[in-house]
Amino acid sequence: MLDLVPFPERVSDARPVSKPSHIAADGSLIMVDVGAKTATERTAVARAEIRLGAKAAAAVRDATLAKGDALVAAQLAGIMAAKATATLIPLAHPIPLSSVDVTFSWNGDVLVVEARAHTVAQTGVEMEAMTAASVAALVVYDMTKAVDKGISIERVRLISKTGGKSGTWESQTP
Amino acid sequence: MLDLVPFPERVSDARPVSKPSHIAADGSLIMVDVGAKTATERTAVARAEIRLGAKAAAAVRDATLAKGDALVAAQLAGIMAAKATATLIPLAHPIPLSSVDVTFSWNGDVLVVEARAHTVAQTGVEMEAMTAASVAALVVYDMTKAVDKGISIERVRLISKTGGKSGTWESQTP
Amino acid sequence: MLDLVPFPERVSDARPVSKPSHIAADGSLIMVDVGAKTATERTAVARAEIRLGAKAAAAVRDATLAKGDALVAAQLAGIMAAKATATLIPLAHPIPLSSVDVTFSWNGDVLVVEARAHTVAQTGVEMEAMTAASVAALVVYDMTKAVDKGISIERVRLISKTGGKSGTWESQTP
Amino acid sequence: MLDLVPFPERVSDARPVSKPSHIAADGSLIMVDVGAKTATERTAVARAEIRLGAKAAAAVRDATLAKGDALVAAQLAGIMAAKATATLIPLAHPIPLSSVDVTFSWNGDVLVVEARAHTVAQTGVEMEAMTAASVAALVVYDMTKAVDKGISIERVRLISKTGGKSGTWESQTP
Amino acid sequence: MLDLVPFPERVSDARPVSKPSHIAADGSLIMVDVGAKTATERTAVARAEIRLGAKAAAAVRDATLAKGDALVAAQLAGIMAAKATATLIPLAHPIPLSSVDVTFSWNGDVLVVEARAHTVAQTGVEMEAMTAASVAALVVYDMTKAVDKGISIERVRLISKTGGKSGTWESQTP
Amino acid sequence: MLDLVPFPERVSDARPVSKPSHIAADGSLIMVDVGAKTATERTAVARAEIRLGAKAAAAVRDATLAKGDALVAAQLAGIMAAKATATLIPLAHPIPLSSVDVTFSWNGDVLVVEARAHTVAQTGVEMEAMTAASVAALVVYDMTKAVDKGISIERVRLISKTGGKSGTWESQTP
Repeated sequence: MLDLVPFPERVSDARPVSKPSHIAADGSLIMVDVGAKTATERTAVARAEIRLGAKAAAAVRDATLAKGDALVAAQLAGIMAAKATATLIPLAHPIPLSSVDVTFSWNGDVLVVEARAHTVAQTGVEMEAMTAASVAALVVYDMTKAVDKGISIERVRLISKTGGKSGTWESQTP
Repeated sequence: MLDLVPFPERVSDARPVSKPSHIAADGSLIMVDVGAKTATERTAVARAEIRLGAKAAAAVRDATLAKGDALVAAQLAGIMAAKATATLIPLAHPIPLSSVDVTFSWNGDVLVVEARAHTVAQTGVEMEAMTAASVAALVVYDMTKAVDKGISIERVRLISKTGGKSGTWESQTP
Repeated sequence: MLDLVPFPERVSDARPVSKPSHIAADGSLIMVDVGAKTATERTAVARAEIRLGAKAAAAVRDATLAKGDALVAAQLAGIMAAKATATLIPLAHPIPLSSVDVTFSWNGDVLVVEARAHTVAQTGVEMEAMTAASVAALVVYDMTKAVDKGISIERVRLISKTGGKSGTWESQTP
Repeated sequence: MLDLVPFPERVSDARPVSKPSHIAADGSLIMVDVGAKTATERTAVARAEIRLGAKAAAAVRDATLAKGDALVAAQLAGIMAAKATATLIPLAHPIPLSSVDVTFSWNGDVLVVEARAHTVAQTGVEMEAMTAASVAALVVYDMTKAVDKGISIERVRLISKTGGKSGTWESQTP
Repeated sequence: MLDLVPFPERVSDARPVSKPSHIAADGSLIMVDVGAKTATERTAVARAEIRLGAKAAAAVRDATLAKGDALVAAQLAGIMAAKATATLIPLAHPIPLSSVDVTFSWNGDVLVVEARAHTVAQTGVEMEAMTAASVAALVVYDMTKAVDKGISIERVRLISKTGGKSGTWESQTP
Repeated sequence: MLDLVPFPERVSDARPVSKPSHIAADGSLIMVDVGAKTATERTAVARAEIRLGAKAAAAVRDATLAKGDALVAAQLAGIMAAKATATLIPLAHPIPLSSVDVTFSWNGDVLVVEARAHTVAQTGVEMEAMTAASVAALVVYDMTKAVDKGISIERVRLISKTGGKSGTWESQTP
C-alpha cells in the first residue's frame, strides 16, 4: 500500500513566467556550425562552491560519510561528466577532450570544486568545465544529504577561458 | 598552426586541500542497499537560480539568443538529465521516474529553475530533481554565454521532499 | 586542404513553417505523471518497411554486403535501441522491458521489420516498439547505402497494442 | 492483479524469412576502416514525412497537445540523436559533428522533417542526418499518439549528400 | 605526417573459425520474456583476478601510479558499469539494482576484484556482477599499463548466485 | 511475498585489503593531458579466452543456444563497447576510432576472442581493444550461462600494440 503524499504546493514568490517562450520565425534551435573553423587550443576553468556547514564539512574532511569518501567520488564523476557534456547539453558539440582535471579546496566550511578542461578543437571547453564542476558538486550533495538536506551549491561559474575567437577571458569577481 | 595559450594559473585564494581524501578501513564507496525496502511514493523539488544580468535576461525573455529559445532547450534537457541521474551520480540508484517537471520564473533578472520529480520507489528522488535543475541551468548558461560569460548559477538546492523514512522536509531558507 | 562543397539548397516544395511553434501559457513540455497508475501488462507491435530494390534486396538476402549480414546487425541494434527509448524520446518514461523481439519478412523486395515489445508497467510500450523498428531499419539502410543511397524507409507505424486505459488497438491499414 | 492480455498473433501477410541470415566465411560484421582517409568536408540532408491527419496536424500546428509543443521537442531530440548515431548504429564511426539542423515544413497535413548534418571527417554524415530525421519523427509520433495511434512515419530517406569519394548525390524522387 | 605502422599479423595458433555462425530457422536473437515472472530477491557474486607482477602490484598498493589510486577508480567504475549492464549486453534486461558492491583483496601480487549485486527483479543479477568485476579489472589495467603492458586479467567468473528458478549456485572451483 | 535469501558470505581466502587506498598529496586522479601531442596512427590487439567446456562449446558452435547465436551477438556488442570505452573507463580519452574488429577462433573448447582497434589519435587504443574483447566475452557468458554457470573468462590481455611514444609492443606469452 502506498503512503500517498500530496505533491507540495509551489512555494516560489517569484513571478511565474506567463509566456515563457516564443521562437524566431525560422523556428530553429541552432547548433552553431563550427565546420569552417580551424582546431585551436582552448582551456576553461570553472568553479562551484558548496556551502556544507560544520557537520557535513567535517564528515567530508574526515571521510566518515556513510557512502564513503565524497571527494574521490566527486572527482571521478566530474571527469566522467565532462566527457558526457555533448550528451547532456543539447546544442553543445562533441569535442576531443585533451584532459579534464577536478580539484578541491576549502574556504572555511565551503568546499570549492575547480574543474579545468583542455582541448584542441573548433569550439571551446567552457561547458565541459562547467559540467564537470556542477556534477562534482551534485555528487558531494548526494553523499552529504543524509547529514544535511539543506546544503546548497552556490556560484557555479566560469573563472577563466583561453583560446578561440574571443581569446582570453577572466572573471572579475573574486 | 595552434595558437598555444598557457593554461592559466590557479587563482583561488582558498586553502588547497593538502590531503583531500582518505578512505575508511573497509575501503568501500557504498551504494546503499535498498532491496529490503518497500516502494513508496516520493517527491522532491529542487531549484537553481541564474543571475543573468539585464542584457542576457532580456535576450532569454525575448528569445533573441543566437542559439534560439533557452527556456525550451533547458526544460527538455533538464527532463532528460533527470532520467540520466543514475548514470551521472555514481552511487545513485536507478529508479522508475513517474514524472519530472521543469518550470521557470523570474525574480528581477534572476531566472529561477524549479524541477519537481516524482516516483514510487525504494529510494528518494532528491538527486533527480537536483540534477534536472542543475542541467537546465547549465543549458541556460550555454545559450547565454555568448552574451555574458560571467553569468553565475547560484543556489542549486533542495526546496522540499516527501516520502521515505525521513518523511517530509522543507527548506527553511526563502 | 578541404574540398569545400557548398551546402545544398533546400529542395522541399512544401510550405516552410513560418511560425512553427508557440507554447501554452504554462510553458511546459509535460512528462505525464504515471505515479498513481498500477503496473499492468502491455504489449505493442510496430513495423517498418524498407523499399530496397532488387540489387540491395539480393545482397541482404545473400548476406553479401561489404559490412556483413544486415539482418543480424539490425535485429540486435533494434533490441538495444528499445532499451534506450527513454534516452532518445524526451518525454518517454523509463520502463522495465520484459522483452523485445525484432523479426523480418520479405514482401517482394520490400523488407518488413516487425518489433514487438512487452512490459508490466504504468505506461505503454508503443514507443519501445516504434524505436526498435525505426533503428533496425536505419541499420539496414546503413549497411545497404553503399549499394543504393536512394533506399527509403517507408511506413514506420504501430500495428497493434494491448493493455492500459485505452486497451487493445489494431491498425486498420493492411 | 495483472490484466493478462495475450500477445497478438503476427498479422503480416508477407512471407516469413525462413533462413534470414548466414554469414560470410570470415564471420565478420565489418566496421570499415577509415584510418587511411583524409578528413574532408561532408554534408547530408535527410527527410521524414509524418502523415498526421487533420486532427493531429491541427494540434501540432496550434501546440495544443497534452504533452506540449511537438516541434520543439522533436527538433531538440533530433539534434541530440544525431550526436548519438555511433551509439545506435553498430557499424557507424564516431565523427566530430560540425552541426546538425532539424527543421519542419507542412505539405497539407503531412509534416516534413528535414535534418541536415555537416562534418569534416573521414566518413560521411548520412547516418547522422537519417537518425536525426527518424528520431524527430518518433518524437512527433510520441506526442500525437494520444490523438491518433494510426499516424504513420513515411519515407525516411536521404535527399542529398556531398563530399567523400562518392561525391555529390541527390535523390531523383521528388 | 603519420608514422604508418602496418597492422600486425594475427598471431593466434588457434584454428580460425571458418564458419563461425549460423542462425536457427527463425532467425532470432532472443531476449527472453520475463514479463510473466514475479519479482524475487536475487544476488550474485563475481570475481576477476589481475596478475599484476611485483612492480605494478606495489604501485597499486602504494597508490604511486601516475594516474592516481587505481582501486578507487576501479571501484567506482565497476559500480557504474553494473548500472550500465543492459546497455552493454544486448540481450540483458534492464533491472532495478538494489545495490552493487566492489571490493578488493590481494593474493600475493594477484589483485582479486569481487563484485556483489543485489536486486528484487524478474531476472538475475549475474551479468551485473560479472560486468562490474570485468570493468573494474579493465580500469586497473588502464592505470597500470604504463608500468607493464603484459598484465593479464584472469578468471572472470561467477562465484555464487541466489534466487530465481535455478536457486542457489556456488562455484566448485576455489 | 519475497523469498528472502541471505547474501552469501565472502568466500575469498585471499587477504582482505585493510587499507586499500590513499591518495597522493595533490589528491588527483589524473586524466593525462594529451593536448600537446600530434595525432599518429595506432593499433592494438587484445584477446580473451573463454573456457566453455564441451557442452557449451557445442551449443555455441551449432548456434543451438536458447538466446540465439552467441558469436554474432558478441561480435556486435564488442564493436559497440569499443566505441563506449571512454564512457566506461574513467580516465580514458575519447578518441576517433577508425575501426574495430572482433573475431573468434577455437582452441579445443576454449573460444578465443580477438579484438583489433585502429585510430589516428593523440593516445593509444589499447583500452578500446581490451574493452571490446572483455565485453564480447561477457556476452558469450550471458548466452551460455544457462548451460553452465561455471564458465570462466580467462586471460583478457593485450597481444600487441603499435604507434605512439612507446612504439611497437608484443606479448611474449603465447
